[in-house]
Amino acid sequence: MTGPEIDRLISLLARLPGLGPRSARRAALHLIQAREAALVPLLGALGDVAERVRPCSVCGNVDTHDPCAVCLDGRRDDSLICVVEDVADLWAMERARAFSGRYHVLGGVLSALDGVGPEDLTIPALEARCATGAVREVILALGATVDGQTTAHVIADRLANTAPGVTVTSLAQGVPMGGELDYLDDGTIGTALRARRPV
Amino acid sequence: MTGPEIDRLISLLARLPGLGPRSARRAALHLIQAREAALVPLLGALGDVAERVRPCSVCGNVDTHDPCAVCLDGRRDDSLICVVEDVADLWAMERARAFSGRYHVLGGVLSALDGVGPEDLTIPALEARCATGAVREVILALGATVDGQTTAHVIADRLANTAPGVTVTSLAQGVPMGGELDYLDDGTIGTALRARRPV
Repeated sequence: MTGPEIDRLISLLARLPGLGPRSARRAALHLIQAREAALVPLLGALGDVAERVRPCSVCGNVDTHDPCAVCLDGRRDDSLICVVEDVADLWAMERARAFSGRYHVLGGVLSALDGVGPEDLTIPALEARCATGAVREVILALGATVDGQTTAHVIADRLANTAPGVTVTSLAQGVPMGGELDYLDDGTIGTALRARRPV
Repeated sequence: MTGPEIDRLISLLARLPGLGPRSARRAALHLIQAREAALVPLLGALGDVAERVRPCSVCGNVDTHDPCAVCLDGRRDDSLICVVEDVADLWAMERARAFSGRYHVLGGVLSALDGVGPEDLTIPALEARCATGAVREVILALGATVDGQTTAHVIADRLANTAPGVTVTSLAQGVPMGGELDYLDDGTIGTALRARRPV
C-alpha cells in the first residue's frame, strides 16, 4: 500500500536497535513529511559517516581518521590502557570524563555458549600493545556480568604471562551513585560490603 | 569525543519519534559498525525516498507518484471518502483491509488550544471534493479523542451546508477486538452499552 521505496525504508529502520516495526513506520513517515528538516539532513549525515568514519586500527574506536582522536591526543597517558567491550562502552567512559589514558576495544566478551574465544576478540592485539614496555597499567572496564568477569580473568591471566610488568586492575564494584540500598540487589550489597573502605 | 560527523548523526537520529539520545547513540553505532549491512542500504533507501516520494495532491497520502496509488486504483469506489487525521492513520486503515474507497488526509485535528482552525486543515479541499456530486458518503475515521470528535462534528456541520447530498458517518465506538471488559475504561463500556445491537 505504501510503495516499495517507503516499505524498504521502514524495514531498514525497523532493524535499528531500539526501533520496532511500529516506531519504524512512525519514523519513516516523520522523515517523509519533514523532508527538508529531517530527511535531507539525515541523508547528509549518513553519507558523511559512510564516507569518512572508519575503525581505528590501534584501539578499535570509530572516527573519521585512523588512528582516532583519542589515540592521537598527545595529552593522554600512554602508560594506561582501559579495556572495554565495545565502542559504546568507550563512549560511556569518555562521557564520564574520568579517564585520560588510552583505550582498547575488545569487540565483545568471551562466551563459551556463543563460541567466542580469545582469538575472536582483540586480546592478542592487546598483548602486543602491552609487550612494548610503554604500558604500566591495564584497567579492565568490563561489565559486571558472568561473561564480562570471565573475560577479565582470562585477560589478567594472559597478561601475567605475556606482559608480567603490567599491573592489571578492574573497575570497583559497589553501590552506584544515587543508589538506595532498599532498591539494590543482594549481590551488589554483598560486594559493596566486602569491599568496604575507611571513611 | 566522537567527532562532528558522528555527533551530528546521533543528534539527527535522536529527533526521530521513538528514539531518545541513548537509543540514537546505539543506532548510530550499529550503523557505523554494520556499514555494508545497515548503513549503506539505509543511505540508499533514504535517498530513493527523498528523491521520489511526494505528497498526493488529491488525498494527502505520500507516494512515488502524484496522484498516489490509492487515488489511481480503478477498483476503488469513488463515491466513498474516508477522512483520516494523518498518513499514519491512512496506513492503519489500509492494513486493516476493510475499506476500498478513497481517502482524505486532514493533516491534523481542530484544536482551539493549539490554534488549529478549519483552514489550517484540508477541510476546504474535502468540501471541494464532495461538491462534485460523485461522492455518496464521507466516513470520518478520526480518533475517539475530544479534538477528534470536535473535528468530526465541525466537518459534518460544514458538509451539511456545502454538500447536502452526502451522507456523513463515523467509525463505531465500542469494545475493541479481544478486549476484556475488566480492562476497559468506563467511557468505552458506557458507549458500547448505549450502542448495543441485536445478536
